[in-house]
Amino acid sequence: MANPHLADLGRRARAAARVLALAGAAAKDEALRCAADSLEQAAPALLAANAQDLARSEASGVAPAALDRLRLDERRVASMAAGLRAVAGLADPVGEIVEGWVRPNGLSVRRVRVPLGVIGIVYENRPNVTSDSAALCLKSGNAVLLRGSASAIGSNRAVAEALRAGIEKSGLPGDAVLLVEDTDRHTVEEFVRLEGVIDCLIPRGGHSLVSLVREKATVPYVIDGDGNCHVYLDRSADPAMAEAIVVNAKTQRPSVCNAVETLLVHAEVAPTLLPRIAAALEEVELYGDEAACRLVGRAKPAGEEHFATEFLDLRLAVAVVEDLDAAIAHIARYSSGHSEAIVTSDLAAARRFTREVDAAAVLVNASTRFVDGGELGLGAEIGISTQKLHARGPMGLRELTSLKLVIEGDGQVRQ
Amino acid sequence: MANPHLADLGRRARAAARVLALAGAAAKDEALRCAADSLEQAAPALLAANAQDLARSEASGVAPAALDRLRLDERRVASMAAGLRAVAGLADPVGEIVEGWVRPNGLSVRRVRVPLGVIGIVYENRPNVTSDSAALCLKSGNAVLLRGSASAIGSNRAVAEALRAGIEKSGLPGDAVLLVEDTDRHTVEEFVRLEGVIDCLIPRGGHSLVSLVREKATVPYVIDGDGNCHVYLDRSADPAMAEAIVVNAKTQRPSVCNAVETLLVHAEVAPTLLPRIAAALEEVELYGDEAACRLVGRAKPAGEEHFATEFLDLRLAVAVVEDLDAAIAHIARYSSGHSEAIVTSDLAAARRFTREVDAAAVLVNASTRFVDGGELGLGAEIGISTQKLHARGPMGLRELTSLKLVIEGDGQVRQ
Repeated sequence: MANPHLADLGRRARAAARVLALAGAAAKDEALRCAADSLEQAAPALLAANAQDLARSEASGVAPAALDRLRLDERRVASMAAGLRAVAGLADPVGEIVEGWVRPNGLSVRRVRVPLGVIGIVYENRPNVTSDSAALCLKSGNAVLLRGSASAIGSNRAVAEALRAGIEKSGLPGDAVLLVEDTDRHTVEEFVRLEGVIDCLIPRGGHSLVSLVREKATVPYVIDGDGNCHVYLDRSADPAMAEAIVVNAKTQRPSVCNAVETLLVHAEVAPTLLPRIAAALEEVELYGDEAACRLVGRAKPAGEEHFATEFLDLRLAVAVVEDLDAAIAHIARYSSGHSEAIVTSDLAAARRFTREVDAAAVLVNASTRFVDGGELGLGAEIGISTQKLHARGPMGLRELTSLKLVIEGDGQVRQ
Repeated sequence: MANPHLADLGRRARAAARVLALAGAAAKDEALRCAADSLEQAAPALLAANAQDLARSEASGVAPAALDRLRLDERRVASMAAGLRAVAGLADPVGEIVEGWVRPNGLSVRRVRVPLGVIGIVYENRPNVTSDSAALCLKSGNAVLLRGSASAIGSNRAVAEALRAGIEKSGLPGDAVLLVEDTDRHTVEEFVRLEGVIDCLIPRGGHSLVSLVREKATVPYVIDGDGNCHVYLDRSADPAMAEAIVVNAKTQRPSVCNAVETLLVHAEVAPTLLPRIAAALEEVELYGDEAACRLVGRAKPAGEEHFATEFLDLRLAVAVVEDLDAAIAHIARYSSGHSEAIVTSDLAAARRFTREVDAAAVLVNASTRFVDGGELGLGAEIGISTQKLHARGPMGLRELTSLKLVIEGDGQVRQ
């Protein structure tokens, strides 16, 4: 390995992972609570470091939205500490016996949930990712190697140091949380090639980071991809329910991956439903296909690019479709495989939609905004996977584990 | 995509995958049975094509072991057909509801097993991989894209054509099984980068193929890695059981990944146990550490490389270890994470070994040779994963699926 800093962190992470893998739930929960206390106590130092990051970023012309993500205040520090305590309250996934059986020859077999080992996270400038990731990795018995952006390095260092101090105080190794201090662009490329160190890499960032991971990574990874989500209003949709779901899915929090980006409306009901929904989406800019533009005067013409885009803001693409088949075909063409919803009162349509649409989550008569670990009762999440291997949908504690076969006998040999 | 042949196959595989994903178990089983019949009927053509492959390979100086893997005869064709029928008899994994619950707001949530889509297989010269892989992929509702070696291209083409004819006769798309006819070395590099086509790549081959996949692949993959397996004989091991397990694990079939490659013996019992076992392993070449060589005159001195090697033949490395800790440390250093066994009558030692050893399978008082999908009751396998993401250990039908969240409500929106 070319980079001695990474090599050193890698060795320390693996050593910590061996200890964490065997730590009981009580010890891990105590470590999380100590880390939360330590973070709160370190708030002044943390805010000071963050102020320096902010000043540096502002001077270098970083956009206001990015500055907002970087900014910490008392409330956000408290929320990070609360997050650590909330994870302490979740059930420990490690040691769960997922299934077990006995073979005809008397061998007993069970599959036991075990930690992955070392989780690598590459992320951008939100310092809360440092503590959120650390909490979920620690609780699931994994060490975490964090590589945040240069713009947040001071904040991340302060957060990581506070967490490490708290964890050490509890008796578990501080190296459970390790921050890569070298924020040179090339470090990311070395980071994603830490074979034998990183058991699972989770890139949390935009397209360029995901492309870099796909091209360069030699360690196993899970992609937290785009959410180009659709809501399809079936011929039989209840108009009030349709309106409420579309408004919620688009406007309740437009900047997140489970917000809706394209509305599909059955041609038979579009003449009444579409104007009603457009009126309810006053603040939303609409891009419609020809039929939608005829029905909604203020809609702008939509091109291919509008249907392919995850807007993440108050814009919505709209298309009128002939029938359920056309809706499913549109979704198959443009979906990023995140969350897809139908509003219908027709059982056959609901069954077809849930079977035929290929996505991490399919919803019937509910807002796409529910596709979130917390909302589904799965606990905090480290991301939402849009790939099909290992984890699909919200990635919580369980998705940070693997399974081990434990096979017990009385001297059985194979014939 | 540069290669029009691959682009065409990719489009056809995706189209077939959409049909297969919705096919019921009865239709898939009928397709497998028709494919088996078709394979048997095609036996003469298949053997003729294989004879040509063999003649070409022999002329180009291919090693006898490789020629044997390539060779088909009546018996092997019958065994491929029997394999297809056996997979037809396995339970369909698709549609299984893995778990489900209701949220306080009335949303009902379930996780449903769904096919991955298109499975890509890169393999070497065994034509039976063509039919074995096709069977498991079809049964799990996936299309398969196969890229075998140039040496077996005639045999693979004959097998794939027979399977396709049988599947088509049953009414499912023949494109469920697609063979890459272009066996140029560079095609592999293009194959592992078929983003948007291949949902899961399974390389079945040696180190150079695995390295190529790690370096070049941009599609998700699962590595079927080495098996540098250990058996540790604890101080409390029953001598007769210890002997039987070591002999079975080493000699019952030395050429496979779940055979043992290193024997570790507790220092206290080594003076009696090791000579006994060495006597029972007459035909096995032994490489011992200093202590082992003192106890077994015929053992040759073992170097680092012997402990690090997956011999896959009648050689065995042997080390005497001070205690359980030393055994666990040795395994942590050299294990490839496949299968690790302890022979002991001490409950505490068994508990520590199963918890602390990090491998796909850990065994107590049983031969490592049991780590196999069929032996564990998991059905046929497409490989044994030594990675921790997605699949660990034997990969059967279930490991060829993903999960989909299905969320049903009555108009719920997020607050």
